[in-house]
Amino acid sequence: MQLGWIGLGQMGLPMARNAIKAGHTLTVYNRTRSRAEELAHEGARVASQPSEAAQNDVVVTMLADDAATEEVVFGSHGVLAALQRGGAHVCMSTISVALAQRMTQAHREAGQIYISAPVFGRPEAAAARKLYVVPAGPQDVCARLQPLFDAVGQRTYYMGEEPAAANVVKLSGNFLIASMIESLAEAFALVRKYGVNPQAYLEMITTSLFNAPVYKTYGGLIVEDKYEPVGFKMALGLKDVRLALAAAEAAAVPMPVASLVRDRMLTGIALGRQDADWASVARIAAENAGL
Amino acid sequence: MQLGWIGLGQMGLPMARNAIKAGHTLTVYNRTRSRAEELAHEGARVASQPSEAAQNDVVVTMLADDAATEEVVFGSHGVLAALQRGGAHVCMSTISVALAQRMTQAHREAGQIYISAPVFGRPEAAAARKLYVVPAGPQDVCARLQPLFDAVGQRTYYMGEEPAAANVVKLSGNFLIASMIESLAEAFALVRKYGVNPQAYLEMITTSLFNAPVYKTYGGLIVEDKYEPVGFKMALGLKDVRLALAAAEAAAVPMPVASLVRDRMLTGIALGRQDADWASVARIAAENAGL
Amino acid sequence: MQLGWIGLGQMGLPMARNAIKAGHTLTVYNRTRSRAEELAHEGARVASQPSEAAQNDVVVTMLADDAATEEVVFGSHGVLAALQRGGAHVCMSTISVALAQRMTQAHREAGQIYISAPVFGRPEAAAARKLYVVPAGPQDVCARLQPLFDAVGQRTYYMGEEPAAANVVKLSGNFLIASMIESLAEAFALVRKYGVNPQAYLEMITTSLFNAPVYKTYGGLIVEDKYEPVGFKMALGLKDVRLALAAAEAAAVPMPVASLVRDRMLTGIALGRQDADWASVARIAAENAGL
Amino acid sequence: MQLGWIGLGQMGLPMARNAIKAGHTLTVYNRTRSRAEELAHEGARVASQPSEAAQNDVVVTMLADDAATEEVVFGSHGVLAALQRGGAHVCMSTISVALAQRMTQAHREAGQIYISAPVFGRPEAAAARKLYVVPAGPQDVCARLQPLFDAVGQRTYYMGEEPAAANVVKLSGNFLIASMIESLAEAFALVRKYGVNPQAYLEMITTSLFNAPVYKTYGGLIVEDKYEPVGFKMALGLKDVRLALAAAEAAAVPMPVASLVRDRMLTGIALGRQDADWASVARIAAENAGL
Repeated sequence: MQLGWIGLGQMGLPMARNAIKAGHTLTVYNRTRSRAEELAHEGARVASQPSEAAQNDVVVTMLADDAATEEVVFGSHGVLAALQRGGAHVCMSTISVALAQRMTQAHREAGQIYISAPVFGRPEAAAARKLYVVPAGPQDVCARLQPLFDAVGQRTYYMGEEPAAANVVKLSGNFLIASMIESLAEAFALVRKYGVNPQAYLEMITTSLFNAPVYKTYGGLIVEDKYEPVGFKMALGLKDVRLALAAAEAAAVPMPVASLVRDRMLTGIALGRQDADWASVARIAAENAGL
Repeated sequence: MQLGWIGLGQMGLPMARNAIKAGHTLTVYNRTRSRAEELAHEGARVASQPSEAAQNDVVVTMLADDAATEEVVFGSHGVLAALQRGGAHVCMSTISVALAQRMTQAHREAGQIYISAPVFGRPEAAAARKLYVVPAGPQDVCARLQPLFDAVGQRTYYMGEEPAAANVVKLSGNFLIASMIESLAEAFALVRKYGVNPQAYLEMITTSLFNAPVYKTYGGLIVEDKYEPVGFKMALGLKDVRLALAAAEAAAVPMPVASLVRDRMLTGIALGRQDADWASVARIAAENAGL
Repeated sequence: MQLGWIGLGQMGLPMARNAIKAGHTLTVYNRTRSRAEELAHEGARVASQPSEAAQNDVVVTMLADDAATEEVVFGSHGVLAALQRGGAHVCMSTISVALAQRMTQAHREAGQIYISAPVFGRPEAAAARKLYVVPAGPQDVCARLQPLFDAVGQRTYYMGEEPAAANVVKLSGNFLIASMIESLAEAFALVRKYGVNPQAYLEMITTSLFNAPVYKTYGGLIVEDKYEPVGFKMALGLKDVRLALAAAEAAAVPMPVASLVRDRMLTGIALGRQDADWASVARIAAENAGL
Repeated sequence: MQLGWIGLGQMGLPMARNAIKAGHTLTVYNRTRSRAEELAHEGARVASQPSEAAQNDVVVTMLADDAATEEVVFGSHGVLAALQRGGAHVCMSTISVALAQRMTQAHREAGQIYISAPVFGRPEAAAARKLYVVPAGPQDVCARLQPLFDAVGQRTYYMGEEPAAANVVKLSGNFLIASMIESLAEAFALVRKYGVNPQAYLEMITTSLFNAPVYKTYGGLIVEDKYEPVGFKMALGLKDVRLALAAAEAAAVPMPVASLVRDRMLTGIALGRQDADWASVARIAAENAGL
């Protein structure tokens, strides 16, 4: 496929690289141009503006947050103005449901197509083409985009015609991780107070009931009480929980565990730990137990 | 081994049967004698009193709760009075930390040994010898008991010299399940409100991040909104969360997610659902979202 | 004083009327002009645009929310463009801290002065000149505005040089009321379940420990389980708690009771009670207790 | 009246003294006899055993907690065995609902009458005869006891025929205070982060909406961040919230604010502050906000 690709950060760069490897032709744009140049050596064409990347049938955006996405889409030299009628904008970033809804409408009014296709996985998973891709939007368009999704991920989960549904799913997934961290944090605080060896405890739960990678990964961080190097920053974790709560509020869904996790992360940030891994909420649970 | 076995309920009966199959010699006691007679056909000797079962080197108790255990241990014709010096009482029930500590001391004062060895798994797992056994107590005694644990479970996790530690681990495990149910409940309420297909959502989370049996089991119940036949009653779930909170309070460990789950279950009970599966807290989350 | 006055709703109209009665000269603007005409009979001049009302030394805005305030201030024919250098904009509405900060900066850049002066009290209190006024901003300006505050309220509480501080105080006050309602709701659910007469209970708490008007008012509503006519709508209550939480998040302050109250109100809205009095969260507490 | 009086602690001593001053004839018992001797100078007869004090028509118990009350009532030389048929036991302590129910039944079976009559107020209020008395039990008996209640308190609130109802009311009152402290704590953390003067804030809320003594008392402690000398210890506060939650659980009443307050107090205790005033939960709220 001929693809525009906007955003070459920790996630975007390895994903774009995999798209190239899979045989797609990319025109890439990144605010910091040097990262785009890297891909030039691998066959990408480097664009000077988002609009230049958008002059393709399909343009992918993979950016840090709502603000960056809004600027690239609605700003001058932006995607919305440059994309041709019938062209598709595939937004793979973790953004708010409200922004997804706004882009859905704006692209529709411009005779274009908007697809949300957020991904699950850390940078290592992106590099290894092990992401999980969660697209939503017109089904035929998503079907045509399958080669793109296959190029960056190990499996695709289509979530229906309404693009924002995919963003809700992504945010709910991050909420599930955050709530799991908090629950583990409380469980570890409890068993440690009774003298249980944390490593033995982790071994037990992750080889019996909770035999899932996330339990092993985050449980391991909690056992070692080691939150650097950072996989996912507390400040970003809070952002995603906040976006989940905003989506929930818009639909009148009370989520008390999400509220509780948000308060924990706010405590972490108030204590100056915004740059630690979000698993460090476990340290707050331990401190509150006098550990 | 020569074993006394007290308690032949939904869990105790298949466990005792597996112990017999593994070659151990059992003297069994059950309040409702007919269940003990069943095992007589398989080679067990039937006792008329707990004290009779306790006249072995090792006596196992597998009873419903603290009250039943207290009666069998401290009551007249009870285990404590009948067990010989040096004999071991292995309590495999889910009981309070406080009772485990009380039995530890009482048996010690009587020159006996007390072991906590609670198990994870439902009756089907008990029948299939797939339980996870979590013993704690004097290490040499637990080592000698390994053939017993092997007879009823698929794996043993030793949790240290202090018997009550095993009970804390068991209660924390049930707390982790309860908190997972609540988190799933909130996530499903959210995505359903945005029109996501619940089955597709479940497929996504349980084949990517949360690829663990408990997520599949409980997620499946939530998707079908079907809480009968009952795997684990709300009233029992509340009991275990209460015991976890009591253990936490005794050690000054705040567990806000446990508190929240307790309040949910209380709501379920106030609404008359004490006999529904504890996964039905998901219905409360859905109702609170107007679903 | 010569005053512009924008906003003649349930609160704004009686406040403006009291300002006229106190001898101030008002140029009034209201989107629905008929309400402005009412005041014409009492001596006010009617403006056709916000900008016309802003052509005074001081212009007061008393509007429903952020959106209405933003339009009147930043819109075409708005306050910001029309107010003279050195003029003061006194915003008495309950708005977000973020908007107060934005107006502070915008007016400063335009050589104007911005004052936040939100009020506590319902429409009846506004009519009776019984409001509590909470101004913040440059102290000398607030001192000069004292005759205005005296015209509408019974007492003024100056909260410092930073205008947004007054908005935080206002939001925190509404949070305190909301949390009191929730606590009362839980207490009533508890005592009712034990057969206590709710009226006798209310009499007890409001003549002993909690001898304050808000406890009597809201306790009375809860005892009668009567949430109409509506004093303050659930939807508006949720808005204010949300604004308090947003201010708290911006300053990294976890407020778990506020989170909990927010979730309760979301439940109320999901159940279709957005137009009931916010005291009806007590009905949710009662329902959750099976009452 | 001829009264037996058991318990001369911080509350019991001034209450008993006021009973003597009001003309009642007391036989007093206290575990530490020296405190009883104090009252001998004021006309009381000193008993050597609870049973001796119970040899009156009416015996009052005013003890620290459930354990002390149980010992005095059910122990050897206890009230239950010594009180004559038709005699009344008036328990004024803050005890569990479960114990009140147990005593109700035990006294009934012994042909005696049990009355719960807990009080609101600190030791100073007890000395000044300013307590609020909350009796429940057979109405005619409570009516006959009015001279006793008048001797120790400023007002009596009868709560019905079921004694335990009075205990529920007492516990719910302490819950309301605890939740008020937590709400104030969060409000203060918020406004302080925005530079509001805490003293000015307290003046504002306690002269407008929350013009009640408890807000002034506890708000003042929070403003000064001074939790010594101690009015009511954190550990005792936690005990009462725990008893409220236990009563609520027995009646299937979820009380999420009570759960939250309990977790805060547990944190305080984990941090070694069990002997500080319970208002020091405000310090936790401040610390969690980075203050």
